[in-house]
Amino acid sequence: MFLSNRVQRMQASPIRKLIPYADQAKKRGIKVYHLNIGQPDIETPPVFFEYIKKYSNKIISYTNSAGLYELREKFAEYYSKYGAELSAEEIMITVGGSEAVTFAIAVVADPGDEIIVVEPFYANYNGFASLLNVNLVPVVSKAEKGYALPENKEFELKITSRTKGILFSNPSNPTGAVYSKQDILRILELARKYDLYVIVDEVYREFVFDGLKPFSVMEFKDHWDRIIMVDSLSKRFSLCGGRIGTFVTKNKEILDMVMKMAQSRLSPPMISQIGSIGLLTLDERYFKEISEEYRKRRDVVFEEISKIEGVVCKKPKGAFYMSVKLPIDNSEKFVKWMLTDFNVNNSTTMVAPLTGFYATEGAGNDEIRIAYVLETDSLKRACNILRLGVQEYNKVREKESEVQETT
Amino acid sequence: MFLSNRVQRMQASPIRKLIPYADQAKKRGIKVYHLNIGQPDIETPPVFFEYIKKYSNKIISYTNSAGLYELREKFAEYYSKYGAELSAEEIMITVGGSEAVTFAIAVVADPGDEIIVVEPFYANYNGFASLLNVNLVPVVSKAEKGYALPENKEFELKITSRTKGILFSNPSNPTGAVYSKQDILRILELARKYDLYVIVDEVYREFVFDGLKPFSVMEFKDHWDRIIMVDSLSKRFSLCGGRIGTFVTKNKEILDMVMKMAQSRLSPPMISQIGSIGLLTLDERYFKEISEEYRKRRDVVFEEISKIEGVVCKKPKGAFYMSVKLPIDNSEKFVKWMLTDFNVNNSTTMVAPLTGFYATEGAGNDEIRIAYVLETDSLKRACNILRLGVQEYNKVREKESEVQETT
Repeated sequence: MFLSNRVQRMQASPIRKLIPYADQAKKRGIKVYHLNIGQPDIETPPVFFEYIKKYSNKIISYTNSAGLYELREKFAEYYSKYGAELSAEEIMITVGGSEAVTFAIAVVADPGDEIIVVEPFYANYNGFASLLNVNLVPVVSKAEKGYALPENKEFELKITSRTKGILFSNPSNPTGAVYSKQDILRILELARKYDLYVIVDEVYREFVFDGLKPFSVMEFKDHWDRIIMVDSLSKRFSLCGGRIGTFVTKNKEILDMVMKMAQSRLSPPMISQIGSIGLLTLDERYFKEISEEYRKRRDVVFEEISKIEGVVCKKPKGAFYMSVKLPIDNSEKFVKWMLTDFNVNNSTTMVAPLTGFYATEGAGNDEIRIAYVLETDSLKRACNILRLGVQEYNKVREKESEVQETT
Repeated sequence: MFLSNRVQRMQASPIRKLIPYADQAKKRGIKVYHLNIGQPDIETPPVFFEYIKKYSNKIISYTNSAGLYELREKFAEYYSKYGAELSAEEIMITVGGSEAVTFAIAVVADPGDEIIVVEPFYANYNGFASLLNVNLVPVVSKAEKGYALPENKEFELKITSRTKGILFSNPSNPTGAVYSKQDILRILELARKYDLYVIVDEVYREFVFDGLKPFSVMEFKDHWDRIIMVDSLSKRFSLCGGRIGTFVTKNKEILDMVMKMAQSRLSPPMISQIGSIGLLTLDERYFKEISEEYRKRRDVVFEEISKIEGVVCKKPKGAFYMSVKLPIDNSEKFVKWMLTDFNVNNSTTMVAPLTGFYATEGAGNDEIRIAYVLETDSLKRACNILRLGVQEYNKVREKESEVQETT
């Protein structure tokens, strides 16, 4: 039978679609190091469970469609520590950052409209845009430049009459790049010049290293009318399954429109909201500890990955991802091969091919994303396996092409 | 600044948008009986909380995007009791029934396509369709006929080359009508004739009275290719804030497409899924008890409402709603007036105006929806206040028009 074009055109998750090969490898007795997905191994802080236990209401009822007021107040307090001046009314609780990004795209763009994204970008932006029939127009950040934010002129080349906004994550998933306040400001000024919205996904806000300080786009008062900030507790508190995000703006008209969408889906999950009130009582000590843990992991991964001959990788300063260019022909084929044909003492490593993080056809074929979500010893082993895998993969390819040439 | 047309066009929730008036009434010391929203007062079964307490994993992690396999297996077992033959793979866990309906519309219809809905219909279908730029085309069911499912010929009048499916809830929210197996079968045959999908929202499956037996559209084997069934635990187990629904089909292509949408939003809420595994261990005794409780409430409400002079209302056989026609000029005005200008010994009643449950402009102006989600004594008082309110509202209106005529 027929299916809508929007779902047929939608790409499968590049992070999740190769998982069946990992499952098959495990069935053959292979240990798989999962550096493919941003699911941290760190425990959710116990205060989350304590708040849920203390909760005495016996009905799991709808909350306000914008979320529990107490949670929104806690978020306002939390954001104030990072330079953002917000009231509870300007913060809407969403079903993860995913829903917040969906709301953001829907509120600024109609079918056929365009949103400029900094490429490579978080792959699921593709899914949200496809669902809403909005076109993502990429501006490329390069591995050789440490995936720095492209110059304004590169954005300007892509702006058309259908452009409605600019969307990026900071710190960046998948590259780990951290954009400075100056970077953000020039994008805001560019957006003002062309009357565009700026949607910033700050899910990894606290995960910045080497002396950098977390901040939010919401501190730029002069641009509040055009800023939408998207956030989530998934990574910050190892709460991926909680599905608690926020949609933040000081633009009252947008808040009213998003409330209509929020009301139509009724309510964010109630129990997760209760636990999240607890999480937001944690102070900077918690973030320092976690951030320091990820910094260690980044250092280990960077050191090991640098040993791969032909790798292009600058040390990223944030998030818990690293995108690297490898001397490979096809990242999807390579990632699959690592699961089907390669192991070192019955262990192998799974990463994410970067192809799915590009809107540009063919881009990312020699790039992968590493999520450093395991403890350092495992990361060391996993990266070593990756290095050996690259060598072996290329040897096999050479042999294959020799065979092809001689036949 | 600009906003997308899709969100500007979206209607505000007719159920929730008048809540500020209720809040103001409460501030003035008025007790408000809330018969406006389907939030049951019945406790969530304790087994939900017990399963969450027993859960020992210390990380709130993503689950499979289609939900925990164990929960999907439990659902398969549960559906088999109601005539539906399903494997776990054919059941996807969604963020409430809301997300399941959104997925259903998105997978069958592109922007500009049409879906036929039986009117009055669950108001939030409007929101999902607007978000996706799909047009809802109504076929009217009438108060005078007890909101029976319209004849096939009425559907045929509305079918165009852009029609992709037929959507309705059974038992019906907001009318409480229950469609028979024969009704469902003729719609399925109609859908086959015109190559349409049939999307059935069975959120109120167990709430059927007067000897009726719950069943599912999934028992019609000959039509499995075109059936999408949508479900939710919100009402069945007083789990509105849990956000656990299902998207069910035996059409493999659709499952693949929906999996892409599910993966882009990552995961349904994890803790609610754990608790829901517990809920699905409850057997028919639980449903019998709850259903009997709602039957009692329906009888009380029907008896009281029948006392209103000029009311049009047939006794509904399912769900926990009743739509009734009242001798009023404007249901939205009336509902608001009940909150701002009327009380009986400092109490008043809030219902939902039925206008928002129609796609037809101007329809529902003399209809309201009553959700019988309170215990019988409160319902009796609330309905009595409603009766007195209708009398007083019309007296005030008469006086106003006399004044207008004489001036």
